[in-house]
Amino acid sequence: MLKRKDLLSITELAPDEITTILDTAESLTQVMTRDIKKVPALRGKTVINLFVEPSTRTRTSFELAAKRLSADIVNITSSASSLAKGEGLLDMAKNLEAMRADLIVLRHPAAGAPHLLAKALRTGVINAGDGAHEHPTQALLDLFTIRERKKTLSGLRVLLVGDILHSRVARSDMHALRKMGAQVTLVGPATMIPRGIEPWGVQVEYDFDKALDRGEQKPDVIIMLRLQLERQEKAFIPSIREYSKLFGLTMARLRRAAPDVLVMHPGPMNRGIEISPDVADSLSSVILDQVTNGVAVRMALLYLLMGGKGNESSLSRRKDD
Amino acid sequence: MLKRKDLLSITELAPDEITTILDTAESLTQVMTRDIKKVPALRGKTVINLFVEPSTRTRTSFELAAKRLSADIVNITSSASSLAKGEGLLDMAKNLEAMRADLIVLRHPAAGAPHLLAKALRTGVINAGDGAHEHPTQALLDLFTIRERKKTLSGLRVLLVGDILHSRVARSDMHALRKMGAQVTLVGPATMIPRGIEPWGVQVEYDFDKALDRGEQKPDVIIMLRLQLERQEKAFIPSIREYSKLFGLTMARLRRAAPDVLVMHPGPMNRGIEISPDVADSLSSVILDQVTNGVAVRMALLYLLMGGKGNESSLSRRKDD
Amino acid sequence: MLKRKDLLSITELAPDEITTILDTAESLTQVMTRDIKKVPALRGKTVINLFVEPSTRTRTSFELAAKRLSADIVNITSSASSLAKGEGLLDMAKNLEAMRADLIVLRHPAAGAPHLLAKALRTGVINAGDGAHEHPTQALLDLFTIRERKKTLSGLRVLLVGDILHSRVARSDMHALRKMGAQVTLVGPATMIPRGIEPWGVQVEYDFDKALDRGEQKPDVIIMLRLQLERQEKAFIPSIREYSKLFGLTMARLRRAAPDVLVMHPGPMNRGIEISPDVADSLSSVILDQVTNGVAVRMALLYLLMGGKGNESSLSRRKDD
Repeated sequence: MLKRKDLLSITELAPDEITTILDTAESLTQVMTRDIKKVPALRGKTVINLFVEPSTRTRTSFELAAKRLSADIVNITSSASSLAKGEGLLDMAKNLEAMRADLIVLRHPAAGAPHLLAKALRTGVINAGDGAHEHPTQALLDLFTIRERKKTLSGLRVLLVGDILHSRVARSDMHALRKMGAQVTLVGPATMIPRGIEPWGVQVEYDFDKALDRGEQKPDVIIMLRLQLERQEKAFIPSIREYSKLFGLTMARLRRAAPDVLVMHPGPMNRGIEISPDVADSLSSVILDQVTNGVAVRMALLYLLMGGKGNESSLSRRKDD
Repeated sequence: MLKRKDLLSITELAPDEITTILDTAESLTQVMTRDIKKVPALRGKTVINLFVEPSTRTRTSFELAAKRLSADIVNITSSASSLAKGEGLLDMAKNLEAMRADLIVLRHPAAGAPHLLAKALRTGVINAGDGAHEHPTQALLDLFTIRERKKTLSGLRVLLVGDILHSRVARSDMHALRKMGAQVTLVGPATMIPRGIEPWGVQVEYDFDKALDRGEQKPDVIIMLRLQLERQEKAFIPSIREYSKLFGLTMARLRRAAPDVLVMHPGPMNRGIEISPDVADSLSSVILDQVTNGVAVRMALLYLLMGGKGNESSLSRRKDD
Repeated sequence: MLKRKDLLSITELAPDEITTILDTAESLTQVMTRDIKKVPALRGKTVINLFVEPSTRTRTSFELAAKRLSADIVNITSSASSLAKGEGLLDMAKNLEAMRADLIVLRHPAAGAPHLLAKALRTGVINAGDGAHEHPTQALLDLFTIRERKKTLSGLRVLLVGDILHSRVARSDMHALRKMGAQVTLVGPATMIPRGIEPWGVQVEYDFDKALDRGEQKPDVIIMLRLQLERQEKAFIPSIREYSKLFGLTMARLRRAAPDVLVMHPGPMNRGIEISPDVADSLSSVILDQVTNGVAVRMALLYLLMGGKGNESSLSRRKDD
């Protein structure tokens, strides 16, 4: 079981905590293949999806995770500007705690917002993405997806390709993969890779083709990042076409990698920009597995942070047993 | 049971499939009159209400239908423009399938959108209105409401009055009524009736009063369509007042019909435009019955497309039995 | 049990009805402290949260209240303008009744809107705030919070401070406190206190400091009202800073009151305007208790209006008993 009430960042997790989360998620994947995809583990618990930044996919993933564990879940969507009027995020969260919420899932445009809540509340907090800081549940589902296919994480060579600088997914993935013993190479234009990042134990490569094709060091996993299309206007890249040509994953590039390479993407994809449609739908792609595993990993986190009391049998028990 | 995973249009349904749906809905109307309006038939199933066009009533009807069958339901509302950014409808739907959704209820401004999803997914799809194309669940609840009152559909004379050209309700009603043996007369201004529609086996009449009063051929049912008020600006009608005078159902017109005529409207009504308030609230009106029956018909469809395995007893079983 | 289907205003409630509601809420507070915060009392019942004016807190409070009683709840948010188009509020509500809603929780910008629905429907209606008219569930949770701490309501001296004129909370609180035998003093600038209000049995005081410090008549409870910040533009107050100086509750003012005074606020607070942060978070503050009690009071109302059939044991029964 986890000895914490919150999941705020990958950096705070010990490798054995990560393994506990992945193992619990693995046992929960069975629930989702049943005819009745529901267990009573969190009945009577209250989860709040507090999304101060829009997200259909992550919100839906948490909502389904909660419902399949029989928790009650309430969705609150708000804009940061309306939260700023009069009552701030913290007062809102204290109100939710007063209503006896057991866990708040927070997405917020400001880095550190989930930490602020976690410190002030007894209620648990899960970071569902805070600014350009972290997106730890995405990193955990990425680890799960890689482990499911490659059986291990240790020693694997993983490319993280694209806008590393602005990506909370990249940040969380990088920390998570390093903790579990994988080798990480960041690939992207120089304007989009933070300077002085090598001390974090990662390699940097500005040429995608070189990164793909280093003799015996071929990558086991390629994680493509979404290009925020407004970056062009802000002069991080000369043009989307140029970016796509240099850093897009095409079939030609995929063929240079090992035949058993995994292609991943956190979604939503810009098909034809950072990833070509044929690659996205190829046999190497595990992009939809990531989505499926996302529900299982989030079920595991809800369970471990709220309900887990050493009684794991309640996880696989059917509702009517 | 239905041998299909989707309900996309009335045109694809055989008359005996329609009868199965209506019969199942009839048995489900009992559930709604109980003190505990809930059966466990779809427990553990996941339904997604994916509304890419706003609709409070249809969305609520499907949500209640799912909840009363104990399914989990997640609402996703989106604008077509935001769906267009980067990730299209199909990628979104594939994500929902990957999250193990059992059924997607889709409303979309583009005709054919539900068919696109249905072809690409193993997950079932219900068309909750696609552009000006079809709104099959509305047609089924209309059939149900007529059959409930008239005991049969065959041989009935039904007027469909208003903007036939732009109405998905009219299109679905027309096909549904013809399949079940009713005679259909389309009534409206010439600008609002598609040319060359007679080969579909329907009659066309541009004079509402004549259609109401043809001796022994008096109509059994009058279905009034909602006038999209922006049509005037687009020059389909000279003025709303003129439209209302010629094609509005008033008490004076209602008296020319048979005393047992049924007045129907898919809602939301423009009271005082296509239907006068006294007609809407008259004893001839079954407009609110349509709403009640809508929930039962949607429960039937959810059940038949997802859960129906020949074990109909689970439908009427109370949750605690 | 209550012999009514609606809760529209405090003025319509008899003191013994209020006592029934508070006593029921008291027994329900236990449910919220359990590990499984859920009872089956309203299983199979349908509640609609119809919010024609935005409100995260009140909507969430009702949603949690319904879920913890195992009712199904559907959220509908709408703007008054979109409701006005074609189909009015009443047609919408009749549709919800036709879908077999058992209770509609309505927030609406127009005073009297809930009364209009209640008169036209067999379905029950709870007023969750109508214009500047009433907010009865807020008043009931305020009574509950005071009674919980002071053991009685009769004879207490309560200050209601701020914009009395535009506040539905003030109106409902005033009536509720008077009915239960408390003495009420309205405190605020002359522009924000309705003229000729004394016949309602309340005192008026334009000087906050005087009201705090009347020798043996020190207040037992101070209820601070939220300042609508746009009031300044409408010339009700000279400036927010001036308002805050004269009518803000600071630590200096709090010290002039009795040591066991209760500080309340309906939320959301403008910290630093009508209440200073240290007062809001002081030991005298029961502001978060109000939020907790709000869920219990709303559970009591849902139960008494819908499910209460003399069988109170179902309230404390656990779901699996």
